[in-house]
Amino acid sequence: MSSTLITGIAELVTNDPDADDLLGAIADAALVVEGAKVAWVGRAIDAPEADERLDVGGRAVLPGFVDSHSHLVFAGDRAAEFAARMAGESYAAGGIRTTVAATRAATDEQLTSHVARLVAEMRRQGTTTVEIKSGYGLSTHDEARSLAVARQFTEETTFLGAHVVPADHADDPAAYVDLVTGPMLDAAAPYARWIDVFCERGAFDGDQARTVLAAGAAKGLRGRLHANQLGPGPGVRLAAELGLTAVDHCTYLEDADVDALRDSGTIATLLPGVEFSTRQPYPDARRLLDAGVRVAIASDCNPGSCFTSSLPLCVALAVREMGMTPAEAVHAATATGARALDRDDVGALTVGKRADLMVLDAPSHVHLAYRPGVPLVQQVWQGGRPV
Amino acid sequence: MSSTLITGIAELVTNDPDADDLLGAIADAALVVEGAKVAWVGRAIDAPEADERLDVGGRAVLPGFVDSHSHLVFAGDRAAEFAARMAGESYAAGGIRTTVAATRAATDEQLTSHVARLVAEMRRQGTTTVEIKSGYGLSTHDEARSLAVARQFTEETTFLGAHVVPADHADDPAAYVDLVTGPMLDAAAPYARWIDVFCERGAFDGDQARTVLAAGAAKGLRGRLHANQLGPGPGVRLAAELGLTAVDHCTYLEDADVDALRDSGTIATLLPGVEFSTRQPYPDARRLLDAGVRVAIASDCNPGSCFTSSLPLCVALAVREMGMTPAEAVHAATATGARALDRDDVGALTVGKRADLMVLDAPSHVHLAYRPGVPLVQQVWQGGRPV
Ligand SMILES: [Zn+2]
Ligand SMILES: [Zn+2]
Repeated sequence: MSSTLITGIAELVTNDPDADDLLGAIADAALVVEGAKVAWVGRAIDAPEADERLDVGGRAVLPGFVDSHSHLVFAGDRAAEFAARMAGESYAAGGIRTTVAATRAATDEQLTSHVARLVAEMRRQGTTTVEIKSGYGLSTHDEARSLAVARQFTEETTFLGAHVVPADHADDPAAYVDLVTGPMLDAAAPYARWIDVFCERGAFDGDQARTVLAAGAAKGLRGRLHANQLGPGPGVRLAAELGLTAVDHCTYLEDADVDALRDSGTIATLLPGVEFSTRQPYPDARRLLDAGVRVAIASDCNPGSCFTSSLPLCVALAVREMGMTPAEAVHAATATGARALDRDDVGALTVGKRADLMVLDAPSHVHLAYRPGVPLVQQVWQGGRPV
Repeated sequence: MSSTLITGIAELVTNDPDADDLLGAIADAALVVEGAKVAWVGRAIDAPEADERLDVGGRAVLPGFVDSHSHLVFAGDRAAEFAARMAGESYAAGGIRTTVAATRAATDEQLTSHVARLVAEMRRQGTTTVEIKSGYGLSTHDEARSLAVARQFTEETTFLGAHVVPADHADDPAAYVDLVTGPMLDAAAPYARWIDVFCERGAFDGDQARTVLAAGAAKGLRGRLHANQLGPGPGVRLAAELGLTAVDHCTYLEDADVDALRDSGTIATLLPGVEFSTRQPYPDARRLLDAGVRVAIASDCNPGSCFTSSLPLCVALAVREMGMTPAEAVHAATATGARALDRDDVGALTVGKRADLMVLDAPSHVHLAYRPGVPLVQQVWQGGRPV
């Protein structure tokens, strides 16, 4: 098993939970990769020998981003709807239906090549682990094949049949929930690790969400939720009550929601790209952090409400708009992103973790917020190799 | 002189002023480059033959961005100041002085390699023309050498000795104005096309700005101004009165300022990266456009108030935060950016213009706003050649 010593690291973000600072940052650092894993981290002057040597020239090295929330399996785009929204129209969840029609009409090959393109785009921006949801098929056949496509790219696949009630079931939402929890779940489960529900006015209510999550759990799928994005609702408290790993969006929170998150340990995953792209108010990360809630950041990359794949931008938005420090934002998009997927092998660069990392064309993690929009990710390693 | 036919253009943004739409957009287009210039544009089915042929595969082609406002000649960075500001400290113009000390201490070679790095970074993001200011030297020697460095990269160099009163003249600002308009101007003028003043409370007042601009004009330098960034002030009306080509920032405008800009034709250059990075309110582009004022967008790339070099981000911010449509924002960062530098050879892709262009990894210009933060610029041509 060959080893590589990476030196010239101005700042190494380890996310070591035992460090004094949140990021476990080491200045003038080095890191040894052995096979697919991190074998050693520390100060450069203490570094051991290795087979190969790479000098990154005074740059920062961070764990790869863990994007715990994306919707990459779709066809078509909705640039015109975006432009109309920016000209003053309000966001309508019904816009999802145009993507459903395009997705159903696409071949497996078209869907696969589209996901491949987006995953590669994410990787160039530092994302080394990505969760991918279905949710634009909304039929048994199309949800199952969406997940089969997603599974080619990641272990972190999520069945989101309960994304919205499709037009073909508009007059009988209850029958659609029966479909989602019955034949659709049966077909989807082999390709999914997670099950998710869009619990929002106009989509699925708290009781429906509970039903869907229970059906998924019976098939061995772990639950997660889209909740409290467009207004207050029961989703966040349901997630806490069920002890879910994460609940996503969390824009409209009552004090009881914040208390429930703190008490349950459920991670609040914030998706600031959505608020950027819909001109909605941002969630208040500061309030959550100050209350002791764990916060993750993810992209929510999707063609309707947020077509960014850029976690660097989400980090910058978290700092600009949600009251996070650069360190908190980076931690949320790496270490806590990993926890939001129940993963302990990624999201950190300590001994034994997967060597998934990015080299920034900058001396510190702060530059991700200090230099918004600039493509700072110079190099990405996945599983111990440059990609 | 060799010619290249570029085909497969889903959308060609020409910025043809005679077209019906603002961008003079042509669908399913082609473009012929001959030598350094555009020789033909139109629908692909009408395209003439050429020596070479390039198919861009259904992507959008736009004129290269014209970034009419940047401060690239400096040393050091101010990431710590940025992080402190995001944690609640307010923006202090005095922070400039730390950059002045670092810039004075840097060698010409260090300054040159730093500018080269930033210009290359801009180019990768689609910027093919950039204005570069001095203003971190603030001594005769250091302003002149700053401009000599900048001149290696662009014709659009701007003498900004009147950026801030340096610490060594803090007790006698009038003497500093004498220096700027005397020996410093004499030394700087051979390397500069423009002269600029930071006309703002805490920097230079309206009378001082008038004095500096008049001295520059006597040396053949065209005037431009930083004005009305941090509060209302006399700068915008002074720019209009003097008939300057452009006045930059324009965040705090009274109705009389807007009227003056409309009547004079002076371009208002908005710099939304600054408001993003300082958490100040954004200028109201919609108000200006609706009043008939010409609006440009530029980066203001500098280590203090805005260290982004990304015009794609500035376009996205203009749409999200300043009420511009994607087409208006793109036009402002290309065609009107060129006008803000009195340039008519760039900023458009019509016959006879310089073949400075970018190929987006997207089918339309809308994607610059629809996909914020994503590095969409796939290929850049400058003067008829890929770079
Ligand atoms: Zn989502
Ligand atoms: Zn400036």
